[in-house]
Amino acid sequence: MNVIKTIKEMQQYVQETKLKDETVGFVPTMGYLHEGHLTLLHEAKRENDTVVLSIFVNPTQFGPNEDFDSYPRDFERDERLAKEAGVDVLFYPTVEEMYPNEPTIQLKVTKRVDVLCGAKRPGHFDGVATVLTKLFHIVTPNRAYFGMKDAQQVAVVDALIADFHFPVTLVPVGTIREEDGLAKSSRNVYLTEQERKEAPFIYKSLQKAKQRITEGETNPEKIKKEIEQDLRNHTNGRIDYVDIYSYPHLTQIDHLSGRIILAVAVAFSKARLIDNLTFEV
Amino acid sequence: MNVIKTIKEMQQYVQETKLKDETVGFVPTMGYLHEGHLTLLHEAKRENDTVVLSIFVNPTQFGPNEDFDSYPRDFERDERLAKEAGVDVLFYPTVEEMYPNEPTIQLKVTKRVDVLCGAKRPGHFDGVATVLTKLFHIVTPNRAYFGMKDAQQVAVVDALIADFHFPVTLVPVGTIREEDGLAKSSRNVYLTEQERKEAPFIYKSLQKAKQRITEGETNPEKIKKEIEQDLRNHTNGRIDYVDIYSYPHLTQIDHLSGRIILAVAVAFSKARLIDNLTFEV
Repeated sequence: MNVIKTIKEMQQYVQETKLKDETVGFVPTMGYLHEGHLTLLHEAKRENDTVVLSIFVNPTQFGPNEDFDSYPRDFERDERLAKEAGVDVLFYPTVEEMYPNEPTIQLKVTKRVDVLCGAKRPGHFDGVATVLTKLFHIVTPNRAYFGMKDAQQVAVVDALIADFHFPVTLVPVGTIREEDGLAKSSRNVYLTEQERKEAPFIYKSLQKAKQRITEGETNPEKIKKEIEQDLRNHTNGRIDYVDIYSYPHLTQIDHLSGRIILAVAVAFSKARLIDNLTFEV
Repeated sequence: MNVIKTIKEMQQYVQETKLKDETVGFVPTMGYLHEGHLTLLHEAKRENDTVVLSIFVNPTQFGPNEDFDSYPRDFERDERLAKEAGVDVLFYPTVEEMYPNEPTIQLKVTKRVDVLCGAKRPGHFDGVATVLTKLFHIVTPNRAYFGMKDAQQVAVVDALIADFHFPVTLVPVGTIREEDGLAKSSRNVYLTEQERKEAPFIYKSLQKAKQRITEGETNPEKIKKEIEQDLRNHTNGRIDYVDIYSYPHLTQIDHLSGRIILAVAVAFSKARLIDNLTFEV
């Protein structure tokens, strides 16, 4: 596995790769790899000749009161996991390499962001779109892999690629779950024993709602109330939001039809968990 | 010469070109080709295996009161000139092809734009940056050619490429001039006979100022006044601006050093002419 730290070397590497008519699969991350990332790498490996993993804790997607400095980092462990996953190139640039100058041009995401988790993180997706624009130009992948756990991020990347005609195919990868259905997350370790027993009901409530919709219920307010009731019946978590939108546009709908997302955030004592289902009605 | 009208075909074409390890030179234009464009094509031809010319009158770079609808178009003539210039691909998309949806993500140019001609065209360079981002993704050129006649546009493209690490080399091409020094422009035909005699003094005044700076003058205000006086002595045009900035940052400077631009706009009865010199002090 190559570890590349400069933009120039990375661009050179992929240029040579492409001359050999080899496809490049790209998994952009902020490191501290978990099973979700490994699944993305696995998919990238399966579909491409070359796999590039980037590890870059991107300062521009953190708000002023967010945890950029304390965001967990463990490069040695990540490097080992990447090697085991068959990554060909680990791109690991510094902040100075990625942001050498005060920018002249800003990216502003004007839709799909004022809902769900984005509503509480103004500017977050501007930073995500900015760093991905850079990374897509540096890695020039054929395919880029993102986890559906963060469905809103996938929606923003979808818009980024479409709006600017990036020659990149977005590959959304389904959420990886524990056997009892709980979406895998590094935050699950912060759950108490009791909360860990309750947490799978988040996914169960979403599945039940999907079932109700499949059976013909078309009123989003009714479904939202049912999910909320379900969560209250089975968990002691505080419901942060239960929302239903069109997907990937993330606009309000009065009547359930087309592709939709059911999304939930529940705050337990020391961990805020999110989960979602997207499907065609 | 291929005429390609869809993004998909264009992306396919350049992908195949690159597999042959051929370089792509790109000249983006709004059509109605003149000698300036032909010089860009000539340079692109000289330095690359394949030359792509785009003709697209980009609506997003016109203000609400500007002349998008009446902007001159003559595709047959352009096609003939492109063929004669040895263009390999003429990319000629419709507005619907380039802007199929209401955008989710906006580009905002926050520096280098509130001066010179940009000061009077709010949003103009946002549109330029947006369409070039699209075109760079569609054509994926190795080199992109822009005329220094529009030095501010070159400065914005320079920032666009640097900020987002586009794998594209910007090639600025010097302004083409008549024998008497007047910068070539489609607008020169609107000059009266008397104005046509006066107009070369724009370039002469810039050259004289450069000479004064080379000889040691470091005060920008003094130089500006001298250019203005020179223009008033030799033309009846109305001076729109005479400005001196750092280049390509286009920031105010108190003391002439480093790379600078001397830029002038003079309004004659039916034609507003611009010209500039950039050089290292």
